[in-house]
Amino acid sequence: MISVVIIGNGNVGSHLYKAFLYADGVTATLINSRNLEKIPQADITIIAVTDDVIAKISSKVKNSFVVHTSGSVSINSLKNNTSKGVFYMLQTFSKNKNVDFSEIPFCLEADNDEDFLLLKKLAQSLGKKVYQIDSKQRKALHVAAVFVNNFTNHMYKIGYDVCTEHSVPFEILQPLINETAAKVATLLPEKAQTGPAIRNDKETIKNHLFLLNKNQQKIYTLITKSIQNGD
Amino acid sequence: MISVVIIGNGNVGSHLYKAFLYADGVTATLINSRNLEKIPQADITIIAVTDDVIAKISSKVKNSFVVHTSGSVSINSLKNNTSKGVFYMLQTFSKNKNVDFSEIPFCLEADNDEDFLLLKKLAQSLGKKVYQIDSKQRKALHVAAVFVNNFTNHMYKIGYDVCTEHSVPFEILQPLINETAAKVATLLPEKAQTGPAIRNDKETIKNHLFLLNKNQQKIYTLITKSIQNGD
Repeated sequence: MISVVIIGNGNVGSHLYKAFLYADGVTATLINSRNLEKIPQADITIIAVTDDVIAKISSKVKNSFVVHTSGSVSINSLKNNTSKGVFYMLQTFSKNKNVDFSEIPFCLEADNDEDFLLLKKLAQSLGKKVYQIDSKQRKALHVAAVFVNNFTNHMYKIGYDVCTEHSVPFEILQPLINETAAKVATLLPEKAQTGPAIRNDKETIKNHLFLLNKNQQKIYTLITKSIQNGD
Repeated sequence: MISVVIIGNGNVGSHLYKAFLYADGVTATLINSRNLEKIPQADITIIAVTDDVIAKISSKVKNSFVVHTSGSVSINSLKNNTSKGVFYMLQTFSKNKNVDFSEIPFCLEADNDEDFLLLKKLAQSLGKKVYQIDSKQRKALHVAAVFVNNFTNHMYKIGYDVCTEHSVPFEILQPLINETAAKVATLLPEKAQTGPAIRNDKETIKNHLFLLNKNQQKIYTLITKSIQNGD
């Protein structure tokens, strides 16, 4: 049996807590990060708070093994005097949407093999995709995630705006959005590219720019060039 | 029974031809766009060629009802002297990948109601999502498709490059990619946005830029600003 304390009841903390309740071989306690007077003992203490308070909160924890859940914070930012680790789940967590942990990649890091194996066991109680990722790799992964998640979502947002302005239902684009996402599971993104940019179809590009506002034009032009330069 | 002639055996033409072979109530013939000597008679003649030769090829067709399949070409670019229309399927077609037509949105346009209903009947022999979209709306849709497909794919490409450079398997990002795509089916893209840009997390943004090359930095900065400006 692995005992877990989760500090922080935001999106990540509360989804994780709920998942542990149904997991075999794990007992979990959830506590508010503003109430650290009595932190129960546990095999693993998971700090699930915003990046900028991880150091401060970890400095107050005396438990034996303390990990955080952040994609962009180094393992060395933890200021507890005991063992350290990272338990990073690469997925977006939304308040009112259930999370399928079985599909989530767990990116784990620890100071030594024994701690790593304990973290791995904990991750495997929820999911099946476990990766050993060090702090430098995790930072790169987090940047990459900004591109494939936040920036991609902004491409959807501009697509939505263009549709709305011309009275076209955005739902028409959903199958294309799904197919574009599914394609890169089997094809390198570079090989999956199609459209006027990669074809250098100047006439279409000119017509497209004509339909866009200034900000959209800037983005269209920069990404088109980047596609054409292959960079 | 609707008779169809498809002119052009590229990706769109050949996928469409194969689909019609299995459709009820449709007979189809596929001909090469370089061999227009003998075009068979048909209820609907579908020109599935690259944008810049649609006008030229249509001028050589004497059949009663001629449509093209392009997202960015106006119905008026057709130069046949008979009825005109558009049969635009909003999806990416790849050579070696089967297409599930039942999920594809058909965006149809015709000069009159009778022709439109015939096109609609043809589309419904393959799929279930049929929209009446005029040439101006279709142009907007095509621009929006560039953002949600080509530009999104380029975001995946940069994510892939960042991963590769730091020896991280890109597959870790696939569940996030899928979830990001699925999210906008139920949530407005603007409401679905998360990450350092929308939070204005300057420290993380600075750290991210440090990991990127010049071109990636330019794109990161421009999209981050656009997310923050809500435009």
